[in-house]
Amino acid sequence: MSWTNKFSEDARAIEASEIRELLKILADPNILSFAGGIPDPELFPMADISSIRNTIELDPVLSKESMQYSATEGYMPLREWIAERCTTENLALTSDNILVTSGAQQSLTLLAAALMDPDLPVAVADPTYLGALQVFMTRRPKFVTVQTDEDGLIPSSLEEAFKAGARILYTIPDFQNPGGMTIPLDRRREIVELAHKYDVVILEDTAYRTLYYDGPAPASLLEVEGDYLGQGKWQSEGLVIQVGTASKTLMPALRVGWTIAPKALFEKLVILKQANDLQTSCMNQMMAFKLFSSILDDHVQKLREVYGERRDAMVKALRRYLPNNVRFTEPAGGMFVWLQLPDGLDAKELLAKSLESEKIAFVPGAAFHATGTGKNTLRLSFSTCKPPVIDDAMRRLANLIAAEERRRVA
Amino acid sequence: MSWTNKFSEDARAIEASEIRELLKILADPNILSFAGGIPDPELFPMADISSIRNTIELDPVLSKESMQYSATEGYMPLREWIAERCTTENLALTSDNILVTSGAQQSLTLLAAALMDPDLPVAVADPTYLGALQVFMTRRPKFVTVQTDEDGLIPSSLEEAFKAGARILYTIPDFQNPGGMTIPLDRRREIVELAHKYDVVILEDTAYRTLYYDGPAPASLLEVEGDYLGQGKWQSEGLVIQVGTASKTLMPALRVGWTIAPKALFEKLVILKQANDLQTSCMNQMMAFKLFSSILDDHVQKLREVYGERRDAMVKALRRYLPNNVRFTEPAGGMFVWLQLPDGLDAKELLAKSLESEKIAFVPGAAFHATGTGKNTLRLSFSTCKPPVIDDAMRRLANLIAAEERRRVA
Repeated sequence: MSWTNKFSEDARAIEASEIRELLKILADPNILSFAGGIPDPELFPMADISSIRNTIELDPVLSKESMQYSATEGYMPLREWIAERCTTENLALTSDNILVTSGAQQSLTLLAAALMDPDLPVAVADPTYLGALQVFMTRRPKFVTVQTDEDGLIPSSLEEAFKAGARILYTIPDFQNPGGMTIPLDRRREIVELAHKYDVVILEDTAYRTLYYDGPAPASLLEVEGDYLGQGKWQSEGLVIQVGTASKTLMPALRVGWTIAPKALFEKLVILKQANDLQTSCMNQMMAFKLFSSILDDHVQKLREVYGERRDAMVKALRRYLPNNVRFTEPAGGMFVWLQLPDGLDAKELLAKSLESEKIAFVPGAAFHATGTGKNTLRLSFSTCKPPVIDDAMRRLANLIAAEERRRVA
Repeated sequence: MSWTNKFSEDARAIEASEIRELLKILADPNILSFAGGIPDPELFPMADISSIRNTIELDPVLSKESMQYSATEGYMPLREWIAERCTTENLALTSDNILVTSGAQQSLTLLAAALMDPDLPVAVADPTYLGALQVFMTRRPKFVTVQTDEDGLIPSSLEEAFKAGARILYTIPDFQNPGGMTIPLDRRREIVELAHKYDVVILEDTAYRTLYYDGPAPASLLEVEGDYLGQGKWQSEGLVIQVGTASKTLMPALRVGWTIAPKALFEKLVILKQANDLQTSCMNQMMAFKLFSSILDDHVQKLREVYGERRDAMVKALRRYLPNNVRFTEPAGGMFVWLQLPDGLDAKELLAKSLESEKIAFVPGAAFHATGTGKNTLRLSFSTCKPPVIDDAMRRLANLIAAEERRRVA
């Protein structure tokens, strides 16, 4: 009996990702990993988590509520907190704009289900977040890639994509995964204007937005659109939908993310969310709310200090050790440095060698490209290793790259 | 700007469910609800939850692991526990057959994504679980309804559905939601044989299976198929996929469910799960594993005693108070009694009156019918009210029904 001929067309279109296979290697404790875009578990706010859990468990009403089925839209205090936090002068958000999801990945799942049909042209940066490509692929859209430079999406390339019929743009404007680029404010304004000129929905992913190490990121596309449209207009004319997560600032196992959407889209997303998994765990949402509203700012400040030092260590080491013909981004936040090896070097082959001789892991970049380019690119995450470890590992990795490059040239 | 013309075809096909609107009414504390299929929060094992949380939090390794990203397949000890628990002589399961999901609803989401294309004929009982109809609807299959009697699915009607081209059957063989029926063993054997005769995949939902009040349910369809195929054959020839959940036995806010599938399907489901929400909360899975492996049997025994008394109270009251021309099921487990009012009475109108004059809520049955029949049916849940409350409410509801029936006849 064959299952393959029972699979749906959508299911046939999606295969195991490289990151997935990679993560299996990472279970080996001897491997030093710069692969995952994961927070350092040493920085989880364990004491606050314990104390908040105790508070909830000792409250006879809250404790039972936390364990029960709950509203599909999400835990109201959390929705209100997010709405208030993201409100600006020209963008008045209410809880009716906030759908809590089981992580930002599920936000993308629901948005893809709501908005994507087979063959719909969807614009994505080249490179972009692999997990977004994966979930979009389950809807079988037609990817239209947009070129990027050190300032992220290039507006002229974006306009070409829009002219070519793209109906949706997915983008991570701040400290992009995997490229590390941040889009400057004037370019953000241009992007919002282009979206309105061509009536394109923008899915703005803010996963890394608060993890800045050289000062805050520019206004988000959502905020820029609020200003562009003028007070109160976003609810009826907004095209920017924003996705956020607690995974990078608090902890991933909360599986708490959210989507900010105008009411008409919000209502459709709620129906799709209910069909998908009924609701996100109430106890996890309560935990997220209580952590957000008590420790978030102080906690993120600490993350910025620690991750910022690691970013510095990685950039410094790469400057020092990498051969001159390897280019890399110097991110102002987030978790990633993006390397471009000389043409002809294959990052997948490099990974095999790196795992064998150096026990160092990273993610080959091809999987971040919707159209199969980028074989000579790779992503390094600096979030989980301390500066001396980063320095030593980058030295060894750079030496390996230099050796491979000599072999190639010879 | 209109969002409607931006929605995908799938999204346009799904509308807000009646249960959804209903649940909003239930926020009113003055309403006595027999609507939701929810566990009684008074029975949540709060002391065990606290003590397990403390154990995890005091363990420096486990506590960090519990908060971090984790494997898409699920927490290994939980997968192994489920595999062992569900293994029979003829059905040897391993962790490679167990995918942990964010509740059984997500199991159905992933199975629908893996197996359903638009217009694919899918057989469902008439009536069946509304949430399954909802998630399947997002894939726009063609529902083929199968008639039921007090023993559940009627094999001759099922064979007709299979002859008409159904490729998938969704069924809840034990204490069905909403009908309360349980399929006897000989009929289960017949169903499995028919599935193999017509090469139909069976999605078996076991949400209520362990909540029996008159003795255990017959062997599951999965177990029956194991015996039908013979030792070791299910892995390559099995057509029964089983879905389970911790929501009814432990607590819903864990959002922990699972799917039992042969390897080839399992692997596709893992890819779809990763695209959907990356993984289910590791801390919630650890909690589920530790509760399952320590208190499950004792805890479920207690649930059986309490819910069994409530089932008895509801059946007794309905026997005593209902007019003779109202039929109802007497379930041997689960949470639901199903009422069939005389033709011409509309359960939705009855609900409006019941909410107004009696402050009593239930679920009108039409939404459980894939093809829009069942206007004179309704579902009552006995899980959250104590026997005297049930008795009084059923008396009042029966009086209202009798009055409505007199009005109709007059």
